[in-house]
Amino acid sequence: MFFRAPIPFVSSLSTQEERDWLIALSKALPEEAVLPLEKLSAAERAMADVAIVANPDPTMLITLPNLVWVQSVWAGVEKLVSAMKDQGSPLIARLIDPELSNTMAEAVLAWVLYLHRDMPVYWRQQQDINWQPQPYIPARERTIGLLGMGQLGKAAAARLQENGFSVIGWRKQPATEQLGIPCYSGTDGLKEVLGQADILVVLLPLTAETAGLLDLQTLQQLRPGTRIINFARGPIIDEDALLMLMITGHIAHAVLDVFSYEPLPRSHPFWHHPNITVLPHISAPTSRHSAAQIVANNITTYRHLRMLPETVDYSRGY
Amino acid sequence: MFFRAPIPFVSSLSTQEERDWLIALSKALPEEAVLPLEKLSAAERAMADVAIVANPDPTMLITLPNLVWVQSVWAGVEKLVSAMKDQGSPLIARLIDPELSNTMAEAVLAWVLYLHRDMPVYWRQQQDINWQPQPYIPARERTIGLLGMGQLGKAAAARLQENGFSVIGWRKQPATEQLGIPCYSGTDGLKEVLGQADILVVLLPLTAETAGLLDLQTLQQLRPGTRIINFARGPIIDEDALLMLMITGHIAHAVLDVFSYEPLPRSHPFWHHPNITVLPHISAPTSRHSAAQIVANNITTYRHLRMLPETVDYSRGY
Repeated sequence: MFFRAPIPFVSSLSTQEERDWLIALSKALPEEAVLPLEKLSAAERAMADVAIVANPDPTMLITLPNLVWVQSVWAGVEKLVSAMKDQGSPLIARLIDPELSNTMAEAVLAWVLYLHRDMPVYWRQQQDINWQPQPYIPARERTIGLLGMGQLGKAAAARLQENGFSVIGWRKQPATEQLGIPCYSGTDGLKEVLGQADILVVLLPLTAETAGLLDLQTLQQLRPGTRIINFARGPIIDEDALLMLMITGHIAHAVLDVFSYEPLPRSHPFWHHPNITVLPHISAPTSRHSAAQIVANNITTYRHLRMLPETVDYSRGY
Repeated sequence: MFFRAPIPFVSSLSTQEERDWLIALSKALPEEAVLPLEKLSAAERAMADVAIVANPDPTMLITLPNLVWVQSVWAGVEKLVSAMKDQGSPLIARLIDPELSNTMAEAVLAWVLYLHRDMPVYWRQQQDINWQPQPYIPARERTIGLLGMGQLGKAAAARLQENGFSVIGWRKQPATEQLGIPCYSGTDGLKEVLGQADILVVLLPLTAETAGLLDLQTLQQLRPGTRIINFARGPIIDEDALLMLMITGHIAHAVLDVFSYEPLPRSHPFWHHPNITVLPHISAPTSRHSAAQIVANNITTYRHLRMLPETVDYSRGY
């Protein structure tokens, strides 16, 4: 067997997390050596045609001049895309994991039910020793607006429908496939979804076009009393505008799992607002085992057949 | 058309609630007069062969000597059953409403997800300004134990399975039908379910046999760290035993929607325990509209065909 260079693993993870990933990847790829970038010699770096990455500092990839592609162990690759777009060269494969869509769909359902069944209201009532049933509204009378109808959005829409909710969707471009729900697109379509939703769920990828998409003007298109869930990326929502509309009560509750700066700084007012639920980026944690299998499969296919998995379209950013 | 006596409506409701029910029932039964018991003359009372009831004081029914049956607008009839068993005579039809099963199944799913996705933990962390992701466990690795496999239990089991959970059930008698999940029965079966469940959901009817079923000895058969949801009736669980096992940490969290005394007294320690979620009996509120339709259908069938809906078996108590 001819000599093959190790596959560099490039990450911004803690030592412990990096080690756990290296173990999982090595198990899934017994014919390859997967090593942290810093363990590779200059010659080995020059030979590397593929790297496995976990939210890396993009400048670290410059030391790998002959990369054809990189495989992310996560779905979100916005930092890499924005840096690589200018550097040119390697293609990027995001992690596309059905297990991840399933976990995200579960999270969307769980926190939609949290709002639908008034859990934050009952929690506050318990603090006040207040026994007060809230009026029950059937799920079919709740319209859930989903922003983003990619793999995650489609899985969430199906799960919500199966559980009785009325669901509408929005995506940037008109859908070219049957989605099973009313799906809007473009600026007018966004206004339509914001005006109809009782609960708005954000599942968009972060791109140059979605950053700040939900600014003050756009958020004001929500009907008074709408509730909002962000399981995508913090910068898609203008956080100051959101806070302002929470204070005026225009938005009745926000469940936020993602923020412009994570961990959310201790001094941030989101922590203390009674109608904001702060979550520590837990909606859809990657399953290391499942991700390692998918990464291994992609790399093996590349080695044997010279075929790449689906890679990011730089022009749209995901 | 011959003279027909009004149908007495016998309830322990507030004036407002009684009026709302009378309006809904009158709309659903345009050929009948439905009136509060106290509006009926002695002669009309003697003619009444059917009454509609909403958790009535059972002694009020003594003034209706010729009742053949009573139709409850709710599913829970334990007070009536226990009083009527001794008085003999009229049969009792509980409300059997598919809409109710659906709402209960949704509640079971919602609060199972609440525990599964660690919502109480994240809530406490937010109070402490603590950003700390909890380990994620897939739904298929959570065993949900359901006590009670009647109409509500079956609907809840199906809903939990559809959403990825592992489900086991328990009922007093061995099941005579296919339930689609492992179903245990008897004392040994109860021990089995308690020993396997990560989350235990109580959906049993309150009868002489289920009152106090979950006492200290039985609750100790739960594995340490089990969480529990009671959406049935308060007296099924020994509340002092539950509190003791919450204090020792043997039971990690309890979601309680029902209590021996409702509303839960302000001085009750359940209000203040950090691992108890107190809900004001809201898991499956009756839909007045839906219930009135079902009651009307049962009464019309009785008038035209002299056929009764399914009635309570006094020997088992539901």
